[in-house]
Amino acid sequence: MSWINVTYRIRAPREQLDAIAHGLALEQSVEVAAEVVTDAFVAEEIMGRVAAAHPSDTGLHEIEIQLAAATTGFDVAQSLNMLFGNSSLHAHVELVDVEFPPEFLARFPGPRHGIDGIRRRLQSIRRPLTCAALKPQGLSSEALAKLCGTLAFNGIDIVKDDHGLADQDYSPFAQRVVACQRAIVQVQRATGRACIYAPSLVGSPRALVAQARIAREEGVGAVLLAPALIGMPVFHELVVAHIDVPAIAHPAYAGAARVAAPLLLGKLFRWLGADAVIFPNFGGRFAYSREECAGIANNNRCDWARYARTLPVPAGGLTLERVAEVVDFYGPDVMLLIGGALLAPADRLAERTRAFVASVE
Amino acid sequence: MSWINVTYRIRAPREQLDAIAHGLALEQSVEVAAEVVTDAFVAEEIMGRVAAAHPSDTGLHEIEIQLAAATTGFDVAQSLNMLFGNSSLHAHVELVDVEFPPEFLARFPGPRHGIDGIRRRLQSIRRPLTCAALKPQGLSSEALAKLCGTLAFNGIDIVKDDHGLADQDYSPFAQRVVACQRAIVQVQRATGRACIYAPSLVGSPRALVAQARIAREEGVGAVLLAPALIGMPVFHELVVAHIDVPAIAHPAYAGAARVAAPLLLGKLFRWLGADAVIFPNFGGRFAYSREECAGIANNNRCDWARYARTLPVPAGGLTLERVAEVVDFYGPDVMLLIGGALLAPADRLAERTRAFVASVE
Repeated sequence: MSWINVTYRIRAPREQLDAIAHGLALEQSVEVAAEVVTDAFVAEEIMGRVAAAHPSDTGLHEIEIQLAAATTGFDVAQSLNMLFGNSSLHAHVELVDVEFPPEFLARFPGPRHGIDGIRRRLQSIRRPLTCAALKPQGLSSEALAKLCGTLAFNGIDIVKDDHGLADQDYSPFAQRVVACQRAIVQVQRATGRACIYAPSLVGSPRALVAQARIAREEGVGAVLLAPALIGMPVFHELVVAHIDVPAIAHPAYAGAARVAAPLLLGKLFRWLGADAVIFPNFGGRFAYSREECAGIANNNRCDWARYARTLPVPAGGLTLERVAEVVDFYGPDVMLLIGGALLAPADRLAERTRAFVASVE
Repeated sequence: MSWINVTYRIRAPREQLDAIAHGLALEQSVEVAAEVVTDAFVAEEIMGRVAAAHPSDTGLHEIEIQLAAATTGFDVAQSLNMLFGNSSLHAHVELVDVEFPPEFLARFPGPRHGIDGIRRRLQSIRRPLTCAALKPQGLSSEALAKLCGTLAFNGIDIVKDDHGLADQDYSPFAQRVVACQRAIVQVQRATGRACIYAPSLVGSPRALVAQARIAREEGVGAVLLAPALIGMPVFHELVVAHIDVPAIAHPAYAGAARVAAPLLLGKLFRWLGADAVIFPNFGGRFAYSREECAGIANNNRCDWARYARTLPVPAGGLTLERVAEVVDFYGPDVMLLIGGALLAPADRLAERTRAFVASVE
């Protein structure tokens, strides 16, 4: 019998905290009043418990709840259900952290490649890695492949599809993947350098399996997936069963849930098998703080069970001018993703790409 | 060429509204600065546009953006990506409403049964319907089946699994579905009344397909699915390809703080094919307002494309004492879900169930 320790942040008057904690422990387990639970097994081994309450003068308190690991059925969707199913509907509750017991984690393999695996695929370079995005959507597959070749030729390690690229008429998935991967192979032959094209896989489960097959057949070196968009259980099943290469997780749609970013992007995505995680860097065009970004990177890379370390990928309006600051903040085990800032002005793409690559070396 | 009209609510100083609106139109389409878009096709047919800005003195403004339908690839996951992929990461942005063009909606069948189909499966009764939940989890399949039989025998129309019931050791899915469906069939034979057992399907795509097969083989009359938990694209693919009976949508994990409830539960779940939608009723233990609940029910039942009407299912701490008020609020095309309140006190289950059923007639 083992328990999952879950931390929630509660916005409420301090005097209501105990009642709210008690209610949460029931809501996220048996979902009935405690007096209805007459079965001894349910009362002792299934019903959630309040482990601790940490009141604060700010009106924003933390509580720790213990949930029985058995209630998850060791399934991803059901685990999310137990962590934050009904309570996600409570506007005053935020899911902040979770500690899974070892026997729970042992059922989930975590990242299959992680930082070390990604580095091995890039000739084991030790510097911070570089990443750039193919955009805007609406360009033809040929135009995107040309852009892919230019970025790779000028030294980018991983060229990924913009997450907006899907299976649209103007650049159908299969056609685009063939064209972009061919551009990558040409650069590898011309330069002797390792570089990777990572197509974006998006769709319903059947479409994703078909896209994964195309990516595998074409020999791409990594894939981009947005777990919150395709469904976190789907992401996990894909990386376990259908994808051999590193999986780069994108945060699209992940901001819509009241789950703390260090937990969702840092820990849960790693638990599900993300080898790299893209997230909005502080000071960019999104609203994450330095502390949140440090928390994501720390959860990505800290010692955790036997899980491989996940590569943090700060992004979101990153510019050339900020590279030194960002590397200084995250250290060398990081991949910097510069998207739009490489593309403007359009006539200086190669030059700006080389400057980006030089800046991390 | 057609456009999707999307409404966002923005919390910002009024003087920043135009810049934010312009940024959002780019973020949710080409994801680069407008000056980078040199391709005429992209500029004219792909790049998002600001249709209107409605500033307010409250600091909470609404803006309307037009996104090209072509960017969705007519895929569910990619549609969510275009509506709220990156912008979900902006704490000051809420997704409030969306108007899809007819040719977009024509690609998605919507609810296959809807209110009329559910009523037909229940001998075409015209009164408000009743629903109750099997819980707490931790009980054996036999105990749950007994509870199922008692609820159905005393007049409940649809007895559903609590959404916490998954495929746990203490009540494995296949065993539980066989036992509960058998209890339902016995009640139908004994009473001549139609009643339905709706098991909860939860898991990764392969598990869901296997569970759907078991549910079909056992002849259950409906299923419960939590789209936000299993993934909205997965939900859609399941109802289109793997489930024949009505699909009841559960809001677990849908407390996506920044997608307005009337849009997510009322409109998007219907778009994806939900025949009935459970949502937290106002005045219960969740925080939805009367206006939000009215908005959900209205979006469930209003005329929309050729879509069947979805059955609203208010729930969340509903009690016998509130039945008349709730029916008065929603009208007769509603299903009332009373969960825990029927079970406490445990020794009066049958009596309370009959009182619930009598109260809607």
